[in-house]
Amino acid sequence: SSPSTPIRATLFPGDGIGPEIAESVKQVFQLAEVPIEWEEHYVGDQIDPRTQSFLTWESLESVRRNGVGLKGPMATPIGKGHRSLNLTLRKELNLFANVRPCYSLPGYKTRYDDVNLITIRENTEGEYSGLEHQVVRGVVESLKIITRQASLRVAEYAFHYAKAHGRERVSAIHKANIMQKTDGLFLKCCREVAEKYPEIVYEEVVIDNCCMMLVKNPALFDVLVMPNLYGDIISDLCAGLIGGLGLTPSLNIGEGGIALAEAVHGSAPDIAGKNMANPTALLLSAVSMLRHLELHDKADRIQNAILKTIAEGKYRTGDLGGSASTTDFTKAICGHL
Amino acid sequence: SSPSTPIRATLFPGDGIGPEIAESVKQVFQLAEVPIEWEEHYVGDQIDPRTQSFLTWESLESVRRNGVGLKGPMATPIGKGHRSLNLTLRKELNLFANVRPCYSLPGYKTRYDDVNLITIRENTEGEYSGLEHQVVRGVVESLKIITRQASLRVAEYAFHYAKAHGRERVSAIHKANIMQKTDGLFLKCCREVAEKYPEIVYEEVVIDNCCMMLVKNPALFDVLVMPNLYGDIISDLCAGLIGGLGLTPSLNIGEGGIALAEAVHGSAPDIAGKNMANPTALLLSAVSMLRHLELHDKADRIQNAILKTIAEGKYRTGDLGGSASTTDFTKAICGHL
Ligand SMILES: CC(C)[C@H](C(=O)O)[C@@H](O)C(=O)O
Ligand SMILES: CC(C)[C@H](C(=O)O)[C@@H](O)C(=O)O
Repeated sequence: SSPSTPIRATLFPGDGIGPEIAESVKQVFQLAEVPIEWEEHYVGDQIDPRTQSFLTWESLESVRRNGVGLKGPMATPIGKGHRSLNLTLRKELNLFANVRPCYSLPGYKTRYDDVNLITIRENTEGEYSGLEHQVVRGVVESLKIITRQASLRVAEYAFHYAKAHGRERVSAIHKANIMQKTDGLFLKCCREVAEKYPEIVYEEVVIDNCCMMLVKNPALFDVLVMPNLYGDIISDLCAGLIGGLGLTPSLNIGEGGIALAEAVHGSAPDIAGKNMANPTALLLSAVSMLRHLELHDKADRIQNAILKTIAEGKYRTGDLGGSASTTDFTKAICGHL
Repeated sequence: SSPSTPIRATLFPGDGIGPEIAESVKQVFQLAEVPIEWEEHYVGDQIDPRTQSFLTWESLESVRRNGVGLKGPMATPIGKGHRSLNLTLRKELNLFANVRPCYSLPGYKTRYDDVNLITIRENTEGEYSGLEHQVVRGVVESLKIITRQASLRVAEYAFHYAKAHGRERVSAIHKANIMQKTDGLFLKCCREVAEKYPEIVYEEVVIDNCCMMLVKNPALFDVLVMPNLYGDIISDLCAGLIGGLGLTPSLNIGEGGIALAEAVHGSAPDIAGKNMANPTALLLSAVSMLRHLELHDKADRIQNAILKTIAEGKYRTGDLGGSASTTDFTKAICGHL
């Protein structure tokens, strides 16, 4: 990678442990000479009427302009009259696909050592429509919306991803035996796209059965694509197989090629500022961002250094059973670069 | 247990391997001198207009009259114009709670040896309303319905069950951070009931987090109560932890004290009639039925014989990695009675 104009990327360090783990990313990127210049934005302390949330309009404009960003944990402030920060970002930036690579980390023991899959979640509709109302006292309903447009879009992304990453199989997860029209439409769209990728094996798995298979034998799965709520559930289940949200990267893809990488764990206010947080999820998310930018050399180098540090086991943060500080762990990664 | 008038119970042997595994239950019950007289009913070969399904009206009347039944797997015949057999049973008999005890079987190794929980699923509404329609071309919606009545009913059942079985904690599973009105109502009802059971610890867990915790550390859970779809997903996930649907009992509870026990696995047409099927799920479901009838001595005796046979490992059917026939396995259980 030759020296060239740096790529500008938005950075939301977030709250709680966010700034500390973001610092870790900045250090690792600097040492690895990643040609990225960060544009930092913090969550505001009052509602921005243009976003109806504590996210400032300027910060969203920054992601739109840069096309790429990285986000730490953001605790949605409690109170009425505003939207959740995560949901605002998804909506405002039209982040239609949430991609989470999930693989067993060598040397970090869980009950599973054979996980290597990607969950791809539709991120804009389904059960997250926000349309709910009381029909009569004691009877409430919520609307799940599935559209052909959003289903085709995420299916296209999933197959494209599978092909680009040398993956062999795409499984569409559904409950079309019960929700024949909504999940049925989702499947129909997946089938249409599957036809264009004859080299990729396509299958359909009912969500309950999928969860059973995942806990029995996750090696059966490769790329999974699903509507919003199933994706929410299954991506967390898969994270659990390899150790939890502290270890799993996440990348959101929006229209027009926008990509927002994020740590999906919480902001852990109890350990904030104590130099105890594990930066792995944010670091691996940053690696996903680099891959999205096709900076594969940098991505490989950083990912290998992270995995080596975890595998070695000498410097591990408290959540992984160790007692290393965030900065010690980060230094160890830098040592492996 | 003194000799007395036998209890009449409806038996649906079901299709595929159903008759073979039902035979196993009949033999074990006979040898254990369970005071039950079976009233057998098969799925019809044409649609009964009174049930709009292949289930005959007479068979449903039988369960209503007897108040208790046992059901093998039923493959819903393919074609239009009729309802799924499982859904018909739930609807017609108003089976509002599905109860699945799920515990690690001593001697049968999976990745988990510390599972001991009960899933209690609302079984009549939620995402299973059947209300779906196309809004415009390419936009479909489905309605999730949550009512105060059904939520209170299943919550009452769950807390009552927890207390009666010496359980310590009830966890309500939800996604009320997104579906504030529907899942919010479900939680509100659970909280109301929880107040009446101060001796039971009550907690609320978001479904995605619940799945992650279940795969990391299922020992954290005791009794789980949830709306329909979450129950569908989580009960299968939990079955996967201990080996699959071939090993897990299920009991449906209806209004007026009706109880229908069932094996929830499929009818396995490929091995039907070959004396290869594993009758464990149906046997353990029959045990759940006995407990519901408060025939605890018989239930204990039979359950112990089943668990001993599995723990010994000498006679195991193909699905558990052995080569015993259904009849050999059944004989071994009878030997342990
Ligand atoms: C925090 C919550 C609204 C969010 C979701 O349900 O999508 C989270 O679980 C996630 O997966 O990003
Ligand atoms: C077969 C299907 C309709 C059913 C359900 O979704 O309820 C099954 O998965 C179950 O759990 O009994």
